Amino acid sequence: MYRSLFTGLAILFSSILFAQKEDSVFIRQIADDILMNGKSYSNLHTLTKTVGGRITGSPQMYKAEDWGMKALKDAGADKVWLQECKVPRWVRGDKEQAKLIVGNKEESLAVLALGNSVGTETNGITAPVLLVNSFEELEQKKDEVKGKIVFYNYKFNPKFIETFYGYGDAVRYRGAGASRAAKYGAVAVLVRSVTNSTDNYPHTGAMRYDNSLPKVPALAVGQWDADKIADALQQNKNATIFIKTNAHTMSDTTGHNVIGEITGTEFPDQYITVGGHLDSWDPAEGAHDDGTGCVHSIEVLRTLKALGYKPKHSIRVVLFADEENRGDGGEKYAEEAKEKKEKHVFGLESDAGGFTPRGFSIALPADKLEKIRKEWIPLLQEYGVYEFSNGGGGADVNPLNKTFGTPVSELRPDSQRYFDYHHSPNDFFENVNKRELELGAINMTALIYLVDKYGF
Amino acid sequence: MYRSLFTGLAILFSSILFAQKEDSVFIRQIADDILMNGKSYSNLHTLTKTVGGRITGSPQMYKAEDWGMKALKDAGADKVWLQECKVPRWVRGDKEQAKLIVGNKEESLAVLALGNSVGTETNGITAPVLLVNSFEELEQKKDEVKGKIVFYNYKFNPKFIETFYGYGDAVRYRGAGASRAAKYGAVAVLVRSVTNSTDNYPHTGAMRYDNSLPKVPALAVGQWDADKIADALQQNKNATIFIKTNAHTMSDTTGHNVIGEITGTEFPDQYITVGGHLDSWDPAEGAHDDGTGCVHSIEVLRTLKALGYKPKHSIRVVLFADEENRGDGGEKYAEEAKEKKEKHVFGLESDAGGFTPRGFSIALPADKLEKIRKEWIPLLQEYGVYEFSNGGGGADVNPLNKTFGTPVSELRPDSQRYFDYHHSPNDFFENVNKRELELGAINMTALIYLVDKYGF
Repeated sequence: MYRSLFTGLAILFSSILFAQKEDSVFIRQIADDILMNGKSYSNLHTLTKTVGGRITGSPQMYKAEDWGMKALKDAGADKVWLQECKVPRWVRGDKEQAKLIVGNKEESLAVLALGNSVGTETNGITAPVLLVNSFEELEQKKDEVKGKIVFYNYKFNPKFIETFYGYGDAVRYRGAGASRAAKYGAVAVLVRSVTNSTDNYPHTGAMRYDNSLPKVPALAVGQWDADKIADALQQNKNATIFIKTNAHTMSDTTGHNVIGEITGTEFPDQYITVGGHLDSWDPAEGAHDDGTGCVHSIEVLRTLKALGYKPKHSIRVVLFADEENRGDGGEKYAEEAKEKKEKHVFGLESDAGGFTPRGFSIALPADKLEKIRKEWIPLLQEYGVYEFSNGGGGADVNPLNKTFGTPVSELRPDSQRYFDYHHSPNDFFENVNKRELELGAINMTALIYLVDKYGF
Repeated sequence: MYRSLFTGLAILFSSILFAQKEDSVFIRQIADDILMNGKSYSNLHTLTKTVGGRITGSPQMYKAEDWGMKALKDAGADKVWLQECKVPRWVRGDKEQAKLIVGNKEESLAVLALGNSVGTETNGITAPVLLVNSFEELEQKKDEVKGKIVFYNYKFNPKFIETFYGYGDAVRYRGAGASRAAKYGAVAVLVRSVTNSTDNYPHTGAMRYDNSLPKVPALAVGQWDADKIADALQQNKNATIFIKTNAHTMSDTTGHNVIGEITGTEFPDQYITVGGHLDSWDPAEGAHDDGTGCVHSIEVLRTLKALGYKPKHSIRVVLFADEENRGDGGEKYAEEAKEKKEKHVFGLESDAGGFTPRGFSIALPADKLEKIRKEWIPLLQEYGVYEFSNGGGGADVNPLNKTFGTPVSELRPDSQRYFDYHHSPNDFFENVNKRELELGAINMTALIYLVDKYGF
């Protein structure tokens, strides 16, 4: 019995080793193909330079959809189609303005209206400023708010090593600050940009109004100018600020998830989804957020096709229509999947920038997570991925998890530079490094291959 | 017996756990202090913007030494001194020129003379070009070399994930190409820049002549222009190139290793060295190479001092005088240590850029390496370091290993962007990210703390 057990184990181990060898060789082919013949960087160049910023409902949204269809066809998708999806239409209008006024001196401020915010009247608003460093301070000073512009001066906490925690901590002021100040009679709000950058670019992003309260204009201000306002108020409490924004919301319109598919050989009706979001904020080119996620996902398909890999499951690349504003793209995709009773075995997303990968977050039970850590990390570590952290996907694939319990995952690149660019005018192509981008595509392709071959 | 063994083990484990807890708390303090009060970024700003490029023997070398003395004093060193060190003095002179000439058409090329190369006569050299893709091809075509400019068109291999391997593979042509071509009568050489960048910056760096052969001028050419030359030669074999360089070598002069020390409390005569090199190539500001290594090392001292840590061993920060050219700084430091019979317990170097750290390479026996992997990686992983690879230090601390057998180590940051900047005109401050730089300093400080406390 011992001998047969031993023999059995030996066969088991040698077949595991053989599989690992084969996987390691195939992943090396994936890497070589992407590093030698990859299209992610040139695809990103086309998207950012010929389409540019592509907020939902804008003419660029439709141009981006056309780009996506073409890129997926060129990558070798068996079929490519558009999935209709209602999307919001918030419009910035003419460039917003802001000035800090101290006595006779006026200095313009680097600002961006926040997504979904309302504009000012034609003449703008000039009002005294109340600086608060937190919501707690707002509550303490609620009697001083009326008629003022509230300036939220909450700083991105540098102590979080993973910067997304710093973002999660600070973004409350952008999201909810306007209504919380309007409750006490504020006429507008300025929010220190949610960034750990060392420059003065303002960073926009979505905000939400509490519909039971007056809607007041809301703008993000660059880091240096946030300091400038704080300094000015220390010198002179009577400093005022002028703002003028032309932002407004129009009725919803129709956008599309752009979908490309390689049909599976064994389980054509079972789907593996990999995607990024096609929409972006308007002030720049939407390079890291989330052009890189789109081209990563297209590259997964291109590479598997180029290497002649025949997936067991159908692999779908989805360029989601709306992540930035209301998350309509991901919701629509899961909703239609539910209607059609599709079976979704995995969803992977890239929406944390085109930086060198470090890991994937993944929603799996502890034993399965431990298993893939043991078996797959040795295959990926050479390419930079050394951890599968316990977590979910992003906003676009999480609805699959909610609807079907599908395991979902997100690429976790190094996060140090992400919030330098996020939602700001410097999120352009030149700030993406070709090799860092390609390493993301390599690891995503390898993960899709492993999931297709072994499941969880 | 089992019970006492169990009790013994329990005490052992709990004391290990207690120590790990204490270490983890202290390393968190290191991180917080660097992220909140760190000086590495502002130190780098001063070095790059007020001193700039600082090749050995240049006036900037002396300015850099003054900067280093002051920065170390400001960081809280117990003593700071200069260690005299003979250094080479290669001078670029007036800006080099190169033109590609096809028929009547002349196009200027982005070039930099290689370090240690000789210049041309006043009128420059105009000659036909022989393109070779490798030394093998040079040997095959040796009869065609005479009177020509040999153009080494060897490309940086993108398949190496760790870019330093790509560098090691391609740098042969920069180092030895001139003499190997001169052997067959070449009048000069051009070398495709040793970089995986997507731009056209030329990248300089050291070359060496074989003194038994004629010395011919040698220049690096930018990537786009290397392609341009190759294309032109395909169209027209009679294309010629004009070059003019004013490079020359003067007699050696005196530079200095700049040294700052915190004196140890238990073993003041045993040294832990941490350093980077103060010299840089001249075309830019020497930011990633190796301003970041200098400010990393100074930050180790500043942080330990700021936190009131009293090291057991004396900790020395060394800003080495010459790494780029002949390696005189590191050699001198080890030589004097030998003369003085110093005991060196550890040498750590940062000379791979100010990018987010991934690991340390370290020269240790396998069992010791395994031990620190097990005990220290869990302490560092939160800050980005997940591996101790088997390897040595860099050129500056390796002489300690050679002289005394001292364990030496080097910070291994993510390498994807390093050769975009290395030795090129875009190695300037703005290409260093504050947080990435600071994470390097955090991990280096933590490693020095652990080595001081536990040894190997």
